Amino acid sequence: MVSEKMYELGTKKSTIRTIFEFGRKRAAEVGEENIFDFSLGNPNVPTPEFVKNAAIDILQNSEPSAVHGYTVAPGNPQVREILAKSINERFGTKFAGKNIFITAGAAAAITISFKALAENGDEFITFAPYFPEYKVFVESVGAKLNVVPAQPQDWQINFDAFEKMLTPKVKAVIINSPNNPSGAVYSVDTIKTLAQILNKKSEEFGHAIFIISDEPYREIAYGVEVPYVPNFYDNTLVCYSYSKSFSLPGERIGYIVVPDAVADFGKIFGAVAGAARVLTHVNAPSLWQLVVAKCAGKPSDISIYERNAKLLYNGLIDAGFECVKPQGAFYLFPKALEADDYAFCERAKKYDLLLVPGADFGCKGYFRAAYCIKTETIEKSLPLFKKLAAEYRVIGL
Amino acid sequence: MVSEKMYELGTKKSTIRTIFEFGRKRAAEVGEENIFDFSLGNPNVPTPEFVKNAAIDILQNSEPSAVHGYTVAPGNPQVREILAKSINERFGTKFAGKNIFITAGAAAAITISFKALAENGDEFITFAPYFPEYKVFVESVGAKLNVVPAQPQDWQINFDAFEKMLTPKVKAVIINSPNNPSGAVYSVDTIKTLAQILNKKSEEFGHAIFIISDEPYREIAYGVEVPYVPNFYDNTLVCYSYSKSFSLPGERIGYIVVPDAVADFGKIFGAVAGAARVLTHVNAPSLWQLVVAKCAGKPSDISIYERNAKLLYNGLIDAGFECVKPQGAFYLFPKALEADDYAFCERAKKYDLLLVPGADFGCKGYFRAAYCIKTETIEKSLPLFKKLAAEYRVIGL
Repeated sequence: MVSEKMYELGTKKSTIRTIFEFGRKRAAEVGEENIFDFSLGNPNVPTPEFVKNAAIDILQNSEPSAVHGYTVAPGNPQVREILAKSINERFGTKFAGKNIFITAGAAAAITISFKALAENGDEFITFAPYFPEYKVFVESVGAKLNVVPAQPQDWQINFDAFEKMLTPKVKAVIINSPNNPSGAVYSVDTIKTLAQILNKKSEEFGHAIFIISDEPYREIAYGVEVPYVPNFYDNTLVCYSYSKSFSLPGERIGYIVVPDAVADFGKIFGAVAGAARVLTHVNAPSLWQLVVAKCAGKPSDISIYERNAKLLYNGLIDAGFECVKPQGAFYLFPKALEADDYAFCERAKKYDLLLVPGADFGCKGYFRAAYCIKTETIEKSLPLFKKLAAEYRVIGL
Repeated sequence: MVSEKMYELGTKKSTIRTIFEFGRKRAAEVGEENIFDFSLGNPNVPTPEFVKNAAIDILQNSEPSAVHGYTVAPGNPQVREILAKSINERFGTKFAGKNIFITAGAAAAITISFKALAENGDEFITFAPYFPEYKVFVESVGAKLNVVPAQPQDWQINFDAFEKMLTPKVKAVIINSPNNPSGAVYSVDTIKTLAQILNKKSEEFGHAIFIISDEPYREIAYGVEVPYVPNFYDNTLVCYSYSKSFSLPGERIGYIVVPDAVADFGKIFGAVAGAARVLTHVNAPSLWQLVVAKCAGKPSDISIYERNAKLLYNGLIDAGFECVKPQGAFYLFPKALEADDYAFCERAKKYDLLLVPGADFGCKGYFRAAYCIKTETIEKSLPLFKKLAAEYRVIGL
């Protein structure tokens, strides 16, 4: 009677959701202050005042139909020009408004890109650990997602494994830096090597291989450079969102950059427009288009994330965990204290530490701790992580 | 290199778009005041002050994360309760929040519904004249759209033709009342007869046949009752949008009602959630969820549309056109003055009257005139319609 596939996708609870709901139940029993919920990647820095003020100013002083009317599908032309200019100032690119397609956030941006590019039999590649919705979105456009095994020592790219998996069927490679869940930022070297391999293979196969650079965490990096991928590789689509940088995840606003340098700009931009149309993204919310234009280039406040990252990282290292030093986003991805990360996260629950098994991100034996939570909660959790580690020393797993 | 289908969907200009762009070009040549553009269905009544004030109030007085944070996929639970209550008060229904799935407007609502229901080999039925995106959206979920021929004397349903087309393959029937482009409102009799036939055939075929009631124009009706379909037929999904009623088309906010009475509530609501997920409608824009809750049940100002409808209808009748009296939405769908509606619309262009051929809506020999424009423009256009009609009397087509 209904699409069984849609029913399954709409009702099967994700591990993260299940953990989160467990946390809500426990909080009702033992009190909010005794639950240490590291499960959700929900920005906890308040939306900046300048964003609020921009929205109010537009509502008060602009002609309503200019604010709330349909925009053309790729977005308000003036807004696109402003966003292009802001990107150019930051990254030395030469984009114009025509290179920008405004979207309802990054989920829409990446899926529109997948759907624009995917032909029959196409495959996409991403790198473990990875955001699990990639698999849902890639499969929803009729393509297949292959996952390159992780490189746990630094969460950069395992190029040997990657090259072996790079067959002529591969249409695009999805990267996500700063990374959810690893917290790593791909270095200039990593991006250069990736570009080199893709250029070589594109030539060998006689067709373009794209990079889809999913960058919702671009602004959240702690003193490391986040290379701007179009400066290193021509066939790049950049997918950006203001969900994290301006703490606006509910408003659904972001964009796709389609550079002139891609293999066939007209074809790709046209296919992006077609994909947005059938995914019924008629236009990105029009007020928020104007707001982000007014706030373009303004800084994100990442000081809370940086403080939390340091606190949690040091605390975990001190408790005996192994963990790559966080470079960005708002996640740590430490090694679990036993091979079975599900069992580990179950054991952590005894201390009301709510963690997500790494297997959910295609990377067994690790766990994700989202630290976009109150600093105080992290402080209070550290002795519990110590107790958890001590328990492992006793049981000798 | 890209999906050719997406490229085609993203670049093939619609007739409406082509006419609109011609109008912009002409306006630059001869002046805005000399162009009579009846092509676009863009609401021209300003967004009500109470909507603006609600948005500003929320931005000024609510905690930012409660305004801009992710909501759960079906929408903010309090908002869903308020919308259900408001629907109940107006239509005597007994919905609760759990029956509401908030969406990014009606395009998302209908396509999510199509995708939730469509199984392999399914067909959908709609009635000419019809909104042409139905075909794009139905085909995008892998189903087929069949169109029942029109009933031009009143634009109600041609039930004889409908019954013949109602095969076991039909999963759902899409209705749109008040109708774009005909301006008709389906009567209680029409809805009752439709329900009767569908009940009979559902039993005969041994499976549910759904009504998807696409209702973006519900509030725009001129003194006629717009029957609330779930009160007449159990297996109804209602798709609503605030684009027209509150003049918020760019903000993308609406909802789907999934009544308890549908064949299997849990299955259908679950599939709706899955469809929203893969179409990457993560949640409907969160600020606008709060705004429509604050404004639920407040009246839409339709006085301008009503005045324009009367003015244009009387003017066209006076000029010798045949036209069914408008009941709602903001369109007239008169008979063209020659069998070839494309040729007719081309001839009208000589007078800078920009009209859309009926064939675009599956109904040859008619044309659509959208009167959501300045009343003054309509006044000035009437003598031109007279000249156009006079030309036809001379050429004797």
